[in-house]
Amino acid sequence: MATPTYTLFFGTFIHLPRQTSLNGPHTLEISHGVLWASTDDGKIKGYNWDVRSEDDLREFLEGRKWGNEVKVVRAREERNEFFFPGFIDTHIHAPQYPNSGLFGSSTLLDWLQKYTFPLEKAYGDRKVPDSVPPKAIMAYNQVVSRTLSHGTTSACYFATIHVPATNYLASLCHNRGQRAFIGRVCMDDENTCPADLRDTSAGESVTATKANIAHIQSLDPNGNLVKPIITPRFAPSCTEQALSDLGALAAEHKPPLHIQTHISENKDEIAWVKELFPDSANYADVYDKANLLTPRTILAHGIHLTPQEREVVSARKSKISHCPVSNSAIGSGLCPVRVLRDSGITVGLGTDVSGGYNPGILESVRQAILISRLLRHTVRDGDTCENANTVKEGRENLSVEESLYLATRGGADVVDMGDEIGGFEVGMFWDAQMIQLGSLKLAPAVASGTGSPEKSENSGSASNVDIFGWENWTEKVHKWVWNGDDRNVSKVWVRGRLVHDRDEKEAGKGVFGRL
Amino acid sequence: MATPTYTLFFGTFIHLPRQTSLNGPHTLEISHGVLWASTDDGKIKGYNWDVRSEDDLREFLEGRKWGNEVKVVRAREERNEFFFPGFIDTHIHAPQYPNSGLFGSSTLLDWLQKYTFPLEKAYGDRKVPDSVPPKAIMAYNQVVSRTLSHGTTSACYFATIHVPATNYLASLCHNRGQRAFIGRVCMDDENTCPADLRDTSAGESVTATKANIAHIQSLDPNGNLVKPIITPRFAPSCTEQALSDLGALAAEHKPPLHIQTHISENKDEIAWVKELFPDSANYADVYDKANLLTPRTILAHGIHLTPQEREVVSARKSKISHCPVSNSAIGSGLCPVRVLRDSGITVGLGTDVSGGYNPGILESVRQAILISRLLRHTVRDGDTCENANTVKEGRENLSVEESLYLATRGGADVVDMGDEIGGFEVGMFWDAQMIQLGSLKLAPAVASGTGSPEKSENSGSASNVDIFGWENWTEKVHKWVWNGDDRNVSKVWVRGRLVHDRDEKEAGKGVFGRL
Repeated sequence: MATPTYTLFFGTFIHLPRQTSLNGPHTLEISHGVLWASTDDGKIKGYNWDVRSEDDLREFLEGRKWGNEVKVVRAREERNEFFFPGFIDTHIHAPQYPNSGLFGSSTLLDWLQKYTFPLEKAYGDRKVPDSVPPKAIMAYNQVVSRTLSHGTTSACYFATIHVPATNYLASLCHNRGQRAFIGRVCMDDENTCPADLRDTSAGESVTATKANIAHIQSLDPNGNLVKPIITPRFAPSCTEQALSDLGALAAEHKPPLHIQTHISENKDEIAWVKELFPDSANYADVYDKANLLTPRTILAHGIHLTPQEREVVSARKSKISHCPVSNSAIGSGLCPVRVLRDSGITVGLGTDVSGGYNPGILESVRQAILISRLLRHTVRDGDTCENANTVKEGRENLSVEESLYLATRGGADVVDMGDEIGGFEVGMFWDAQMIQLGSLKLAPAVASGTGSPEKSENSGSASNVDIFGWENWTEKVHKWVWNGDDRNVSKVWVRGRLVHDRDEKEAGKGVFGRL
Repeated sequence: MATPTYTLFFGTFIHLPRQTSLNGPHTLEISHGVLWASTDDGKIKGYNWDVRSEDDLREFLEGRKWGNEVKVVRAREERNEFFFPGFIDTHIHAPQYPNSGLFGSSTLLDWLQKYTFPLEKAYGDRKVPDSVPPKAIMAYNQVVSRTLSHGTTSACYFATIHVPATNYLASLCHNRGQRAFIGRVCMDDENTCPADLRDTSAGESVTATKANIAHIQSLDPNGNLVKPIITPRFAPSCTEQALSDLGALAAEHKPPLHIQTHISENKDEIAWVKELFPDSANYADVYDKANLLTPRTILAHGIHLTPQEREVVSARKSKISHCPVSNSAIGSGLCPVRVLRDSGITVGLGTDVSGGYNPGILESVRQAILISRLLRHTVRDGDTCENANTVKEGRENLSVEESLYLATRGGADVVDMGDEIGGFEVGMFWDAQMIQLGSLKLAPAVASGTGSPEKSENSGSASNVDIFGWENWTEKVHKWVWNGDDRNVSKVWVRGRLVHDRDEKEAGKGVFGRL
């Protein structure tokens, strides 16, 4: 049977409207009806919010005369299902995934030495230079599976210094259908990097990066799904030479390549950068001098940026990936997102696995909100910094809606795809998830008073969200945000292609089984 | 067939050893072997850590000659299963469960007015005084199911002012087998409580409480499972008369009844208490004057206690229920747990549903750790308060192990049952959970290099924890803490009775089904 020309989605659609004014209020846009996407290019071609019932649907389809060229996917009201834009993870370290949850009581710099570098070393073998070690195969398969199952349709991956494994990750995302930016990590400073986990020169940083770019461009010449991203690990790992060579490499492509790195995550790190780069005015200036601050640059963290640094980041139109789960886990700090946004900086969310322990962006949505509510406890009467002033004005809180905006539209802007993903406008790609909250139902014997409720069994582990039946859609979305997880992600699509189906039976199909 | 005399548990047992010195380091005690509990009284009767294999087990059972009088329950290594003490939730509002996740951007006092009081009103009907409304039946059944499914073997419940629904909750816990303290909520101040959600006098607070105590004592005369707990909502809701009458009511029982209330959660609340009780030195003093600070008193929150208040709480041997999820969600603050413990105060964890959004204590374990790691960002150079000094000494962090201690041993001490629950010593009750982490397995075709890993399917939603196979038991426990949830709670026992079995099929059995 031929592939249908369209997929027609029928049910409730929820997204965050594009923000029209700086820091305006965010609201959910909730629509019921049909929306269709082309199988050919994966783009949304139209919608009709007058189609409300199965009868309406039949009539609509008869009018369209699509015949067998359409496949219908329903989000069912009685199961509290709805369509939502896919999440965009703007900062995740794929190779660190097996360390999720392992960080003891460390903070950034000792965490790198104790947990991260030893694991990353396992992703290549200089003695067998073309090999992709089994650990890399396991970890990369699993992190792509996991992020997809949590509704991540786009991810900005840091890999390692190893080209074969990084190329493997790119091929994997391409094959599995996840939109991905793949960054071969550059770290060449012999004074700061482990001897067995570094580029031997700035030249190697560039050459190896180019090899990875070539692989990705042969795999996906138009970058429909997978794109390279220039990835100096962070200032302390790189020589000035490598930084400026990588800045030049990004610029020589048309359009310029994306860039990702870290900034201002931890106070000891900031002091270290000051020491390592005495000629730079501040952390941001190290990158600016190397032409690494561009409109396609993603800076992870930015917790402790000074007003001067925020100004230059904003002027260069570089973006910030806010990673609240990681920031709390390794105690980096409470990032004042409102202050960043007030400075005109575009912000998205990142899991920062495995500084962050959870592969799902929904956990980052939650913790971005929690952190914003704790910010007021970090300032005092009399403080005059921008953060204190924002708190004084009562504007520091992120609402559920604003945090979901960061996870979708914000992330789309961070990866410079604001017109293509993150919402449900006609012309955008169908990068989406179907959320299923389920529904509690009182057993008839109890409802009628004839049964004994005390003998009830629990409702099982199908979901951690309980919808009692009296909630409106906004309340349902709030309940999803606070108690939802991958169990609620029923299906995931990227460019119109179904890339995750929770209910597909695992037996005999997977690379991984579960005992 | 007769009930076996013993249940024999075989596999890995992990608990936190009882702390021998104030604030000493906490470690996991990991044992492999058998442990047996009596079916009769639910207590642990013995263990043997030399039984390591199925052969050992056979030999052991032959030696014991228990015959059909023993049932064997296995925690299987290959599924990464282990036994762990049940969690103790020292602060949870059962009637608020349907509001989990609904709190907008509110803080304590407006949250009570907007979300909490309207819901609590639905738990009784003055026109039909003996009725238990359907909403109460639904919510109470679901909250008991949910907490059991998250491994909560003991819970300190706040109910509402309504005696019939509160009695119903007590009967429900008794029948379902959850260890519970059931508190009929007292709130009698006509100036601060809603007209349709208050006691009409201090006398009614006492009379209604007594009616609930009588019900619980008829249900469970020895308090084997369910016990009453005196519950003035919090100082602002109660008149001085009600507070002192309730203090006297607790004291007139032998042994004295447990007491629970709130303290020092929010700065506006503290200012309000100062205004309402001008004759008291501080918040703690309001309770102390009413003889409500006893060794069996559980005070929720205590975030902003002054040194003087900590001193009196410690002197009275009253306990603190730390509720980090709630404290972050409604922005109450970052509780300095180390400072409380340094003051000699016993601390346990509470979900504080629905100020806290998650019914599981594991989420509180996580967030207690996260909050402790953010505390350093609330103090400055030059600060001289105890919190700042603790940070300066680098002692503010809670480790995974210490947070698990608070969730088990700490909670047991909070409910004055430190010799009976929270660990696996002989003579303690078998209040336990079996945790299953599962295990990833590389499909043979991929492992041997003949298959195509790019075509893998994800590993499903059976668990959010990924054990790759190289982790030791401590690492497995850390992974459980950071990414585990109710899916990992395979079985739960209280007093030796199986009260939750995740894999028991729901069909046709439950009060609630799931569409």
